[in-house]
Amino acid sequence: AMTHPVYAKIDGPVVLIGYGSIGRGTLPLIERHFDFDRSRLVIVEPNPDLAGDIAATGYRHEPRAVTQDNYRDLLGSLIEPGKGFVVNLSVDTSSLDLIRFCREMGVLYIDTVVEPWAGYYFGTEDNAARTNYALRQAVRDEKAANPGGTTAVSCCGANPGMVSWFVKEALLVLARDIGVAADPQSRQDWAALMQRLGVKGVHIAERDTQVRLAPREPGQFVNTWSVEGFIAEGFQPAELGWGTAEDWMPANAHGYDTGCRAAIWMEQPGANTRVRTWCPTEGPQFGFLVTHNEAISIADYYTVGDPGAPEFRPTCHYAYHPCAAAVLSLHEMFGSNQIQQAHHILDVDEIESGIDELGVLLYGHEKNALWYGSRLSNEETKTLAPYQNATGLQVTSAVLAGMVWALENPEAGIVETDEMDHRRCLEVQRPYLGPVEGHYTSWTPLTDRQTQFPEDLDEANPWAFRNVLERLT
Amino acid sequence: AMTHPVYAKIDGPVVLIGYGSIGRGTLPLIERHFDFDRSRLVIVEPNPDLAGDIAATGYRHEPRAVTQDNYRDLLGSLIEPGKGFVVNLSVDTSSLDLIRFCREMGVLYIDTVVEPWAGYYFGTEDNAARTNYALRQAVRDEKAANPGGTTAVSCCGANPGMVSWFVKEALLVLARDIGVAADPQSRQDWAALMQRLGVKGVHIAERDTQVRLAPREPGQFVNTWSVEGFIAEGFQPAELGWGTAEDWMPANAHGYDTGCRAAIWMEQPGANTRVRTWCPTEGPQFGFLVTHNEAISIADYYTVGDPGAPEFRPTCHYAYHPCAAAVLSLHEMFGSNQIQQAHHILDVDEIESGIDELGVLLYGHEKNALWYGSRLSNEETKTLAPYQNATGLQVTSAVLAGMVWALENPEAGIVETDEMDHRRCLEVQRPYLGPVEGHYTSWTPLTDRQTQFPEDLDEANPWAFRNVLERLT
Ligand SMILES: NC(=O)c1ccc[n+]([C@@H]2O[C@H](COP(=O)([O-])OP(=O)(O)OC[C@H]3O[C@@H](n4cnc5c(N)ncnc54)[C@H](O)[C@@H]3O)[C@@H](O)[C@H]2O)c1
Ligand SMILES: NC(=O)c1ccc[n+]([C@@H]2O[C@H](COP(=O)([O-])OP(=O)(O)OC[C@H]3O[C@@H](n4cnc5c(N)ncnc54)[C@H](O)[C@@H]3O)[C@@H](O)[C@H]2O)c1
Repeated sequence: AMTHPVYAKIDGPVVLIGYGSIGRGTLPLIERHFDFDRSRLVIVEPNPDLAGDIAATGYRHEPRAVTQDNYRDLLGSLIEPGKGFVVNLSVDTSSLDLIRFCREMGVLYIDTVVEPWAGYYFGTEDNAARTNYALRQAVRDEKAANPGGTTAVSCCGANPGMVSWFVKEALLVLARDIGVAADPQSRQDWAALMQRLGVKGVHIAERDTQVRLAPREPGQFVNTWSVEGFIAEGFQPAELGWGTAEDWMPANAHGYDTGCRAAIWMEQPGANTRVRTWCPTEGPQFGFLVTHNEAISIADYYTVGDPGAPEFRPTCHYAYHPCAAAVLSLHEMFGSNQIQQAHHILDVDEIESGIDELGVLLYGHEKNALWYGSRLSNEETKTLAPYQNATGLQVTSAVLAGMVWALENPEAGIVETDEMDHRRCLEVQRPYLGPVEGHYTSWTPLTDRQTQFPEDLDEANPWAFRNVLERLT
Repeated sequence: AMTHPVYAKIDGPVVLIGYGSIGRGTLPLIERHFDFDRSRLVIVEPNPDLAGDIAATGYRHEPRAVTQDNYRDLLGSLIEPGKGFVVNLSVDTSSLDLIRFCREMGVLYIDTVVEPWAGYYFGTEDNAARTNYALRQAVRDEKAANPGGTTAVSCCGANPGMVSWFVKEALLVLARDIGVAADPQSRQDWAALMQRLGVKGVHIAERDTQVRLAPREPGQFVNTWSVEGFIAEGFQPAELGWGTAEDWMPANAHGYDTGCRAAIWMEQPGANTRVRTWCPTEGPQFGFLVTHNEAISIADYYTVGDPGAPEFRPTCHYAYHPCAAAVLSLHEMFGSNQIQQAHHILDVDEIESGIDELGVLLYGHEKNALWYGSRLSNEETKTLAPYQNATGLQVTSAVLAGMVWALENPEAGIVETDEMDHRRCLEVQRPYLGPVEGHYTSWTPLTDRQTQFPEDLDEANPWAFRNVLERLT
């Protein structure tokens, strides 16, 4: 049976912002693994439909939305300077503003995504401004301008988050199997190791096979986590960390001349952009190139040399095959040009079967490709923690790990998961991840490629993005 | 309650080739509506798994495949010259060769598709030769070379087939509603009427919402009719009848300088080509531009003037949204570059709910667009005929109508459904089609078009194929 170590004491208020699928899954892990004053935990959640569930927890409920206008007053009334933890698991709240405020107040902070204030994603005509590159860069600039200080952990969910720890673990596995001695200590060491191992790029390769019996209703967007979050990121431009091994770029792609310069974006929505990838259970498959913070942070972190003219940088992007009902939801949404009004997140108890297979596929090296990740089933999830499906638990256990790390490192400043101690974090998280495994594959994006119609391929470089991206006409 | 008129007597053998989903659904309709000698009906079906079902029918079973080598001997031994009917509902048998043979023997013939011998679709590198244009043209050339004679009905299923009758019915509805007097008698009259009404093109707009509870297994291709047939046509090039209103062509499209010249084909598989269309129940949606005989036959039939430089011709193509499980099957197949080995056709009794909404969308005229078609539910299907789902019944009832027409017109030569009496055929078929309705819509392919990313659109001509075809990068 599972034991539930108490990792740390949280002194002062715990402010949980958002009690959606991730918020409600995180709460029982906080209860299990921290020593804190239950009378000082407050849940900030504006959705009146959730009031009953929140009342049932016994915790204090602040039934308001955090907004650009009220956040200093609202959060100011809930926190205690120099103490406690703000755990932001909401949508529509600016991570940057909350990070600034919490650090100003000396309060630990964590979130799972760099979220902007409401309206940002659909309110601008300027696609370059709607990128995760822009959102992340603002947090990086804040870090550069204000180094050190109270720890604020940015983007510590499953992905972004845990997958950055998997990249490190996978590099150590690969070094061992290739026979390269490796004991990286610094960012530079890690980047040099990736370069030395010949890795050309990384897919965040996820296959979600969770499924319920009742068919999706037409007009309903069904997913295994925030529908709102997925639609918002799905309509952002497709974005990817852009590696030094690429010598072809999509015609509608744009780079940057400010910031870390590690990424490009394309003039098309990520959730309508298909790429070829590989996961252990189903093998080769399409994923959607949905923009994600980690695509940029990993490409940035593993850059060797001058960011403007790097010696080495991996290509990195998400290749997400969501659950079947979400694939159908996307097909409906892009086909009708209507965003569905009805949203549904598959509940752990209605899911009939399936796993969330979420890992990193390190490719282009002498062993071709290594997938390393979690293969957590919904069945196993039920035995591990309440109120969440497999997708949720991969996220909430990363939040747990990030909180532990922050409490152990309270003066680390603003950090991304690439910059945290991946061993300690995975140690905390692993009991919740089901089988965590490495799988080599000989598959490449050119394997079994159809030959009936001409395709514009790079035959000499199987892993070139040109071969990965599906293009038609 | 339904009555079952006996429409005609079939004198001589009835040879049913293929006892797949369509064959088994057609048999009870033949039994209901024709007077024939039951001891002289034979089912030619090579699949040993079907032997039990066939034995249960009590009819003679010829457990062999019809092949290029044996068809004259095999069919020769089953037919009686000058008598009977060959009903070809198989895959992998050459319609052209069977038509020639049956007409040589004076035996009536019907099929639902111009099928080639086994291996044709995947055996050639020459995409232009793998088109339905090529397959159809060979039958048209045979007709031109050998006019008249014993009737052979080519492509008389739901589509190709019934939808050609719907086009005529829709034109009469549109003429009435626009206030144009219309009494077309000849092909020329019909083409002139379409031109006069301002129709720019026709989508064969089909939405199949039939669904079962058990989720699709990964690695299984699930459909509501022949999986083999759908995969074969899905990998053929996307093809469409090419109208005179188009002034832009996809970069990878090719026309013809022989034959009817009514169509173009594209260097991409039809089942991986998405187009924007509209059906009554779900409204705007993606369909797949899968090549179909009717896309060419309709464009050809409604051509006004010289085929090489027509005065008028409609654009025409299939826009097929198959059942949800088939959408997922395609996503898996094109993503993995593997054709699934496990095939499953949804059975009428396992289908939980859904309809097959199959009609023709006549667009570009002063009332914008009119969808006219059958909205048959699986529930209603159960009350109408045994052994088939809604998709099947739309096909088998068209076969019935075509057989009736052939028996009433036994010396009409080789005909396509455009050339048959649509009133008589729909009269026979209608009791099996559920609600047959016309629906106008104000939707166009530019409606609600996203504005976040630049698209290469023809704003002045909403229905231009340039706006209909989904293109990325
Ligand atoms: N990094 C990862 O792996 C990962 C994975 C899943 C989700 N996420 C992110 O976590 C967040 C939560 O995901 P979820 O699945 O729980 O979403 P959800 O949609 O289920 O819940 C979000 C909650 O936030 C609340 N909310 C909305 N506006 C708010 C505001 N202004 N102030 C306070 N609360 C507000 C909503 O009412 C809702 O209950 C999202 O931003 C999502 O993108 C990250
Ligand atoms: N026009 C339309 O609307 C329409 C609709 C559906 C199907 N179809 C066509 O009808 C045909 C049958 O469809 P289905 O859903 O019944 O397909 P199916 O795959 O269920 O059945 C086809 C049957 O043909 C048999 N067969 C294979 N090779 C044969 C051969 N050489 N000789 C004799 N029999 C052979 C198979 O064993 C199988 O039982 C297909 O060609 C399909 O494309 C047309």
